[in-house]
Formats: sequence, C-alpha cells, structure tokens
Amino acid sequence: MGDYPLEKRRMINIPDILGYTVLKCDFHMHTLNSDGEVTAATRVQEAWEEGLDAISITDHIAHKKGAKDENQGYDLGRKDATEKDILLIKGGEITFPLNPGPGHANALFLQDVNKLQTDDWRETFSEAKKQGAFIFWNHPGWAVDSIRWYEEQSELYNNGLLNGIEVFNEFEFYPEAVNWCLAKNLTFISNSDVHSAIDRLYDFNIVKHRPMTLVLSSEKTEKALKEALLAGRTLIYAYNLIAGKEEYVKALYDASVKQVTKKPLDSGKTLFIFSNESDIDYILKRQDIGKIPEDIVIFGRSTVNVMLENEDIKPSVYVVENVFISGYDNLHVTLFQ
Amino acid sequence: MGDYPLEKRRMINIPDILGYTVLKCDFHMHTLNSDGEVTAATRVQEAWEEGLDAISITDHIAHKKGAKDENQGYDLGRKDATEKDILLIKGGEITFPLNPGPGHANALFLQDVNKLQTDDWRETFSEAKKQGAFIFWNHPGWAVDSIRWYEEQSELYNNGLLNGIEVFNEFEFYPEAVNWCLAKNLTFISNSDVHSAIDRLYDFNIVKHRPMTLVLSSEKTEKALKEALLAGRTLIYAYNLIAGKEEYVKALYDASVKQVTKKPLDSGKTLFIFSNESDIDYILKRQDIGKIPEDIVIFGRSTVNVMLENEDIKPSVYVVENVFISGYDNLHVTLFQ
Amino acid sequence: MGDYPLEKRRMINIPDILGYTVLKCDFHMHTLNSDGEVTAATRVQEAWEEGLDAISITDHIAHKKGAKDENQGYDLGRKDATEKDILLIKGGEITFPLNPGPGHANALFLQDVNKLQTDDWRETFSEAKKQGAFIFWNHPGWAVDSIRWYEEQSELYNNGLLNGIEVFNEFEFYPEAVNWCLAKNLTFISNSDVHSAIDRLYDFNIVKHRPMTLVLSSEKTEKALKEALLAGRTLIYAYNLIAGKEEYVKALYDASVKQVTKKPLDSGKTLFIFSNESDIDYILKRQDIGKIPEDIVIFGRSTVNVMLENEDIKPSVYVVENVFISGYDNLHVTLFQ
Amino acid sequence: MGDYPLEKRRMINIPDILGYTVLKCDFHMHTLNSDGEVTAATRVQEAWEEGLDAISITDHIAHKKGAKDENQGYDLGRKDATEKDILLIKGGEITFPLNPGPGHANALFLQDVNKLQTDDWRETFSEAKKQGAFIFWNHPGWAVDSIRWYEEQSELYNNGLLNGIEVFNEFEFYPEAVNWCLAKNLTFISNSDVHSAIDRLYDFNIVKHRPMTLVLSSEKTEKALKEALLAGRTLIYAYNLIAGKEEYVKALYDASVKQVTKKPLDSGKTLFIFSNESDIDYILKRQDIGKIPEDIVIFGRSTVNVMLENEDIKPSVYVVENVFISGYDNLHVTLFQ
Repeated sequence: MGDYPLEKRRMINIPDILGYTVLKCDFHMHTLNSDGEVTAATRVQEAWEEGLDAISITDHIAHKKGAKDENQGYDLGRKDATEKDILLIKGGEITFPLNPGPGHANALFLQDVNKLQTDDWRETFSEAKKQGAFIFWNHPGWAVDSIRWYEEQSELYNNGLLNGIEVFNEFEFYPEAVNWCLAKNLTFISNSDVHSAIDRLYDFNIVKHRPMTLVLSSEKTEKALKEALLAGRTLIYAYNLIAGKEEYVKALYDASVKQVTKKPLDSGKTLFIFSNESDIDYILKRQDIGKIPEDIVIFGRSTVNVMLENEDIKPSVYVVENVFISGYDNLHVTLFQ
Repeated sequence: MGDYPLEKRRMINIPDILGYTVLKCDFHMHTLNSDGEVTAATRVQEAWEEGLDAISITDHIAHKKGAKDENQGYDLGRKDATEKDILLIKGGEITFPLNPGPGHANALFLQDVNKLQTDDWRETFSEAKKQGAFIFWNHPGWAVDSIRWYEEQSELYNNGLLNGIEVFNEFEFYPEAVNWCLAKNLTFISNSDVHSAIDRLYDFNIVKHRPMTLVLSSEKTEKALKEALLAGRTLIYAYNLIAGKEEYVKALYDASVKQVTKKPLDSGKTLFIFSNESDIDYILKRQDIGKIPEDIVIFGRSTVNVMLENEDIKPSVYVVENVFISGYDNLHVTLFQ
Repeated sequence: MGDYPLEKRRMINIPDILGYTVLKCDFHMHTLNSDGEVTAATRVQEAWEEGLDAISITDHIAHKKGAKDENQGYDLGRKDATEKDILLIKGGEITFPLNPGPGHANALFLQDVNKLQTDDWRETFSEAKKQGAFIFWNHPGWAVDSIRWYEEQSELYNNGLLNGIEVFNEFEFYPEAVNWCLAKNLTFISNSDVHSAIDRLYDFNIVKHRPMTLVLSSEKTEKALKEALLAGRTLIYAYNLIAGKEEYVKALYDASVKQVTKKPLDSGKTLFIFSNESDIDYILKRQDIGKIPEDIVIFGRSTVNVMLENEDIKPSVYVVENVFISGYDNLHVTLFQ
Repeated sequence: MGDYPLEKRRMINIPDILGYTVLKCDFHMHTLNSDGEVTAATRVQEAWEEGLDAISITDHIAHKKGAKDENQGYDLGRKDATEKDILLIKGGEITFPLNPGPGHANALFLQDVNKLQTDDWRETFSEAKKQGAFIFWNHPGWAVDSIRWYEEQSELYNNGLLNGIEVFNEFEFYPEAVNWCLAKNLTFISNSDVHSAIDRLYDFNIVKHRPMTLVLSSEKTEKALKEALLAGRTLIYAYNLIAGKEEYVKALYDASVKQVTKKPLDSGKTLFIFSNESDIDYILKRQDIGKIPEDIVIFGRSTVNVMLENEDIKPSVYVVENVFISGYDNLHVTLFQ
C-alpha cells in the first residue's frame, strides 16, 4: 500500500571530458509550493531515477512579502536529496512580466529565497546578487511571437545581474539565444521546467532523458558546480540535440565516437567500425565530395560499420546535424583518417 | 510550461451484460489530504485517461475531531470530475487497527466525512451507516500472516455495517475473501489503493488497467451505482483475473467470446474461429478427453483459429483458468458446439 | 524448438460503412521467389497476426520464359491462407523500366502468372487482361525526381489495361496520384511493398498497422473483392492518413466519430463528448471563427471532452487534417450541432 | 523498396574479465537449409544488430549422402559476416534419435560438413573429430519427461567425442546438465536454437538478449575462440541467469558490481552506493542476520543506494539468486565492507 515498486536509477551515458566530471543537471522545476503538481520529495525521486546529479526546485516567487515560505521546496527535499546523493541547489523563479519587466529568471545558490519577495524587480535581482546567486533568463521565447533581447535584459546584463540564458526549455530550442550566449559570454542552460509528474511531460519510452544542462565541474559538490556555471563551462543536452561552445562540443564528440576498426579485406575493400559509448545519436552528413556514404548515423551505445573501396579512402569531412556550435552552425568532423 | 501534452482517454473494452451498463470503478485511492502523493485533480485526470467511470477519493480519516477537513479530496476534485464526466463518490477510509479493532474500511456515499472523526470505531461505523454509506472491509490480508475473519467483522456484519470486501487490493488477491462474499452475500470489490501517481504503481506498458470493480448498473448515475453496489451486482477485474458470482462471470464470458466461423474445408478438416471483443485474455485448458487442443488462449481484442479433423468435433468442456466463480473454482465453458 | 510462441491476431478497428464489409488488404509484397527475404508462409502468418483480410504475394516476374515458376508464392502460401481464413489472391509484379517502358505494375486475380514471362511489356499487359486481371501502377514516384504521368501510362489507360494506382507505397504518399485517380476514375491503392520481415520494415510499437487498402466489399470472398476493386470502392489507410473519394471518406468519418454527450452544466457551460471507435486519430483544426477550440484531436479508440460556454455553441466547421478528398483538399466536418 | 531502415547495433554490456575478451556467442541456429525460416544473411544481420561477436549456423544434417549441401549456410553467410565483423563458425547439427542413439549434437569448426552425412552416428562423430570439431550435446531435456545421461553419452564422452553440453536452450535451463559439466569437466554452452526470425522467438521489448554463451577468449579470432571452448572457459547468460564455474562467475560479478560510495551523513547513518556497469540485474538476498536490507536488486546499468545506521554496518553475506555455481548452488557475495 503506497510503497514504491522496486526502484531503478538509469545511467545517463555522457563521457567525462577535458579532465572535468560532467554533471547532469536540471535547474528549473516546480512543486506544490507554486503551480507544480507534485511534492519536493517526488522531484528528488524523479531526478534520482533519471540519473541526474543536481537539481534546483525553483517555484515561482510570490512578489509580496510573507505570501508564502519560498524556501519550502528546498527544505522539504533536502533529506531525500542527501540520501539519494543528489545535489539540491536552493533557488527560486523570479516571476515578473516581460517588457515592461524582466520576464522570468531563475536564481540559484540563494541563502534565503524569502528575501526576494519584493514587488520591485530591480530590488529582487539585487537581493539575489547580494546572496551570491547565479542568475539566468528563462525561456526567452515563451508567450511571445518573436524572440527578442529587450532593454531590461541589457540593464540586467550591464549590471552583472545576468549570468546565463535558457536556450532550451521543456520542448523548445532558441537558436537566437545560443548566439546571445556566445556574443555576451553567457552560460548555456537547458531545463525541463516541469510542473506535472515528469512522466506526464516526457514519454521515456520515446525520449531517453529530460532536457538537461551538462556542467563541466571539477567535482560533484555544490561549490564546484557554482564555479563551473559562473565560468560558463556547460553544454545543453535536450532530446538528441547538443549545443555549446565549440571547444566543449568537440571534446564531447571526440570522447563519444571512436574509430575502433580499420581492417583491409581480401576484396579490395576496407572495413571501418566506429563506436559510440554515449547516449547521443550522432547524425552525420557528408560535406566533402567522394565515394563515401552520404549519411551516417552513429547511434548511441552502438557501433556502425562502413565498407569503402580502398581507392576511395581519404580523410572526409562530415557535418554533425544534431550538434550546434552556434545558433545555426554545426560541428564538423573528419572520418576515415 | 506546465500544460499537459495532448490527452488521450483509453477505452476499457468490457461488454455490457444482462441489460446493465458495466461501470469501471476504483473506490480506494489517496491524495495529499492523507498519505497520498498527488492532488485530487490528478486522481480525476488519471481516472479519465484510464477510461474509468467512477472513483472515490478515500483518504485516511484522522480519528480525532477537527484534525483536518476530511471532505477536502471530494471538494477539490468535484469540478474536474464534472467536466470529465467522472462520477466522484464522496468517501473516506476508516482507519483503525485490526483485532483488536475493525482494521481499515471504506465508506462510500457519505454526506459529511468529518463526522466520522471519532476515535471509537463503533461510533464511526454507526455514523457512516446513519449517512447511508456503502461500507466494505479493505485488504483483509494486509500486514497479517494469514487472512482471518475476526470477531470484529462478525459484529459489523451482524449489525448491517459491512456490505462488501476488497477481494483484490493493489497487487494482491484474497481467494478466501471471495468465499466469504459468496457465503455471506457481500459485494465483491477490487481497488488500486494507489498512493503515488498511478503510473508509478502500475506500468501501463505491461498491464492494461489498474485493478477495478465492474459494477452492473442500470445507468451511469451515482444513485444507480449505489443501488447496484448494495444489490451486490459486481465483478472484480484485476490484471487478467475475473472473479464474482457465476451468473455474472458467465454472462461476461458469453458477451466477450463468440464462435464466429465454423467452416468445413476440402481437407476433411473444419476451421473454427473464436473472437473476443473484450480486453480480457481468456486462458482455456481442456477438461474433456479428445483430439482437441489442450490449451487455447483467446486473447483480448483478437481472434483465434482452431482446425479440427471432422471426426474429432464434439462439444468439449474447457476450464477458464483466469476466471473464478469461487475462491478456488473456475468457470467452465463448452467449445466446438 | 522452433515453434512459434503463442500467436495473437490484432484487431484493426475500422467500421463497416455504406452497407459494405470493409476488407483490410495489402496487394504488394515479396518472398524468396524474387528479392524478398521470407517465405510465403511467413507472409500469410504476418497478415494473420496484423488482422488483414486479404493479401497478394506479388514477386517480381522474370520477363524471360521459364526463368522460374511465377506461381510459387501463391502455391506455397495457399494451405496456410485457407487455415488462417486469409484471402490469398494470385498475382505478380510486372517489372519493366519506366519511360521508356511502363515501370512496375501489379496484376491481381491471375490464372497463371508464368504466362506473363514475356519480355515485351505490351504482351505482358495483354496477357494479364486476357486472364481477367485487375492491374495497378506501382509507386509512381519511385526512383524519379518528379512524379509524372508518362505516355506509356496513357497507352495502358486508353487500352483498358490500367485499373488503379498505388497512391501510397511503403513510406511514401503521392498526392498527384490521388488527383489522377479522381480525374481518370482509377482505384486508390495503398500497399506495404514489404521485402524483409514486416517487423523489420515497420516498428509496431510506433505505428499501429502497415499501409493498407480498405476495400468496400459486399462480402469476404475473392469474387466480391474483385468486383469492389474494379468498381473503385476503396480508401487508402497508411499511418494515420486516409484518402479516397469524398463519399467514402465521409462515410468512414461518420461511422467512426460520434457526439455521445451534450450535457448542460450548472456553470453555464455545456459538456460535449465525442467518441471514436476506429483506430484512426482524427486531427481537427477550426475553420470557423468563434470561441471554440482551435485544435481538437479525436484519438482512435478514445473519447474527447470539450466544454463550451452556452453562448458560444453553434455548428462549427473543422478541417480534418489527416483525411484527404483530393491530393491537396481535406475533409470538412461540422461539430457542436 | 526493400532497403532496411536505419540499422543499429546494440551493445551487450558484459565486462571483460581475468584478462580475457568476453565474446558473446550463439552456436545453434537454423536457416532455410534445414527447418529454419530465414536466410543465412538474415542470421548474420540479426547477430550484428544484437551485438553478438560469433555465431554458427547449424542446420540439421541430412544423414544421407548427397541429400543437400551441408556447407550452404556457412557459404551464404560468409561475405556478410566478414563485412559485419562477425566470426562465422562452420558447423552443423548432427541429428539422430536419442537412446537408442546420441540425440542431437552440434559440431563446430568443421572443414566440410557434407562428410558428416553418414547414417551411422558413430561414423558421423568420428568424422567430426577427425576434422577437429568441438562437439556439444544439444538440449538434453528436449522431448523427454526426465533429463538423463544415457549410455550413448558415456560412449561419446569416453571416446573424447563430447566437449560440452547445452545447459540452456531457447527457453529452457537444465540444472542437472550444469552438474554434469562440473563433474565431467565439460564446457557450459547456452544457445537460442532459433528457427524463425529472432524477433518472433524473443520479444526484445521484454528480454534484453537472446540466450548466449560468454567465451573468455584471448582475442576475437576463430582460433582463440576454439582454444577457449576446448579449455572450458565459458559462462552461460540467458535471460537474467548466469551459470558456470565459480571462478568465472565470481570474476564476472566482481567486474560488474562496485561499491562506489560509503559516505557518513550527519544523521548517524552511512550512505552506500553500489553501481553495476553490466546488463545483468543481480538479485541479492540477505544470508547473514542483521539490520540490513533483506532484498537488494542491483539493476543492470544502474546504481542502488542503501542507508544503514552506523552501528549496523559490518561485512554481510548475500546470496545472488540469479547466479549459479552449480545446478542448485548460488554465488555468495559480501557487501558493506
């Protein structure tokens, strides 16, 4: 009666890169303390089952003193998070209208979320900064016809009150926001923004994971996580889409995909086998001219075989269609070396 | 952000029988108002998606005056239930120890659940009866080594304070309770007793439905439902198991399974085809001697073909292994007529 | 060792319409007798499991006398088809180049496929007609950059040697071919053209059925099926797409979707419930102006609830986006009557 | 038309152990050259998709000179096997009655299978040995009421004509055969014996892999594979069951399961986390007395958390219920060290 059935934690297969531990994080979700439909304990349980390393419960802040206890989500989730070895980051969603106004933004690593309950958004952001928060703009394309950078964002940015942007939220990708991150050196963020039970939002028979931010952290601690976020060492991973600074994106691809076999056969052909230890399906399209396959999909947790005539073998450039190094540019890689 | 994805209501394929509408019901579930993990609105939404006709939110009653508002589950779920066309029955779970004490029992069709907040179980049951409740004993095998009928059950039964028994609860079937229902003319009940989100309790990729009570009702109204429960016109349907009075069980089988083809072929054989419009998989084992198949499974929403030599054709009795007419006796049916 | 596990035949839920039995048919598939990878028995078994009524094994004809026995697929599948109650239609795939040449075409209801082994395509088509065949042009968009009606098709059509066109083949829909069928009174055909095991071509965890032709037949016999095909009484059903003459398309929608509830509530609103007994998901988009939902999906084997303010209720036109009455026109329906 | 959809090779997650490469092998399957239903090319394709390293196509040998070409399966599968990097071992199924007679046995690493077409079983086994075959007894429990070691097996064994036994075939496990392997130093073998398409035999939505033999080989070559089989370095892996010599079974468990965290918490408790990189779900039951969990399931590709009161921590023995070191004895392991 009411006990969970046997629980299983899934593994997210993303290799560590560049000497960092890659933490799988979701920094945007709601509970019964605002308009979410589940408890804080459920959020921790879901994160554990899905293999996440860190989450933040970011209920909408009521911008009215004493309206409710804004620390509740964190307080209710804390014990379970400790037992599940999940980093639970204290945070909240600053909730104002957009233009006029800053729209929604999440503040992480807060000391006391209640102090953000002012109805003046400039005060709210200042208070967050005073507490040492990492602040990012949420879903810049939400409920608007076209995604735009408003003067309020400029004001926040110029005052050091904006550290990142959600370039992916729930089901939506904002390529323009990728370009803003690159141009302004803001941190790439990707979150679920889940309100219902997570299984109601995503069908895990079809998608492998919720949208998440991959953080290149020196270790799995809150302190290291914060340092990495402020330093902009992140990638976004949503559905099968990867985006971020080229340096990180390339390192992830290189750590995932290996040419494991190059075997000449009697037939005058050579057999190449590529393996992919990650969960990501890499979708490659030929860029160079030549008698090489036009399309190669190196599926996650799989290998792919390619046979070439010996005379056709040469290093060949492919574009990786699901991996972005700017809003509209893809990673390029070289096969058959 | 937070909207449900496109919702779909599944159809439960159970034929109407004996001139009655067969209502699919779950009379035992919990919300945040006791030890459940979801809201009343979620319970209604789940029931709608699963194709149920009627539910009762039966949070544990605090047997202490004013401890909480025991009508809350009903009140919070009412509007959604109306819009979803789900019959929401006001009820509560009477929660006392078992022997000494009556154990747990659900009271349905209550007027004011708060009035059951006494710490004297006899008073609580009397009050439920005063309000016209239908009362059933919950999970008689729960947390005990062997399932037994205690003197408290006798007292309740003799005073007309017991109308039915859960012969199936969550994952567990109590064959002894089936026999008690038959011997004492009590109503067969089957429920989920769900505390978490329903998808966390049952994997709907594997099981088709939650455990439910099938009620043979004159129409889909609360009044008709109550009349049918008091008259004992129910069957239990849990996983692929059916149990109840032989009359109802047989009617359900007959309305589900049809011999749709009996076609002599040139080869001296005859082709029989049986169809099954219900969701139930009927598992048949040969009882009679003869050159007929030993095992026949007439899958739900499917047909099955059987070829017999013409000389082997005769009416043949099979036992239906998943359909019970007592705690240990199965329905018998005749094929190849 | 080697026995099939317990077999189950799925039900395809398509209502009978206009007084006809709707037969579910696939008239294009291959076996080991040409470039297919499975036996004729496997084709029959697959068809049975998927709930089909009729199939034709249409291996590529070798247009060279005596090259192989072109009747083999039919002969090897016949016994199983009888025992499975599947109509197995003798046929073959006429296999010539396209322009010059007629391309590929299937001839059904042949007497002796071997007689079509000539290397002159005009002779082959004449022989098929002499045997009373129903002949349709296969995958008109296959291996060409743009789909075109060639002079060879005109010649066949003018000589009464073309009765239908595959407007859907395997994964591909040809809207132009729909318009040709309407303009020239040719029969709409949809087939799988499967070569491998069917489960390798379609993932039945994702799609419900293989592409099929729905034939409005007076009964389930080969004779009635042929009469219906020659009379053009078909619809195509592929993935969730329906196309055909408006009369048949509309009858199918009307037999699938019912407004089962129109219940005024106390709140000044009215609850409408629509049910859909078919497997087809009907995707509706609002055409009329008004305070009514912009998008309604009436999922297959499901119901959908819509609440309207009483003052907003009026008959309202929706376009059914997955149901076509020409290559580019959709069925229109009226809700809230 | 007829092209495969995008192919994906699954990874079987079994760690390498004791300095050996663990090859995943199925040495028993049929094609159209005996009573199988698919081509040799399909067998290779299936093996590739499922992540196998080595297979043998072992069609039933016709024990009549010239009846058919017994090398056909190997010859037809060879080219695809090379391109897929699958080791294809030439073999055949010696097919005689059991007692009197030797029953069925597979001979692997043959030079010319046709030479085994004699109708005298002693001659057939001698010829196999002459060709240097590795020979194992197939499905000793097949089609018999009780599994028994017959005099024919003794004769073969005493003459060095028996190297191993299938202790798992298709769906069936033979614990007695495990004991025979241990007592007589025979090699443990596990195979699918598939006749139909593999997806028809196993539902890969439910089971992860076909039954297979894990071979501890010095490298992935035919020569090394043969050496390992003759040396008895194998484990069986079927469904979630592992069996073999204790030395190998223990090495596999130790390479799969790691205690990755032992973290004292403020609450006076300690958090243990165990990870399992393999696909195998290890099912543990407490053997020792103590306040430790009675049941622990360390799911494949997952981690499990256990919280203990500090005073309850001590090395504790668990029995691994799905891992066998004899027909009826399980592996024992120690947790919380």
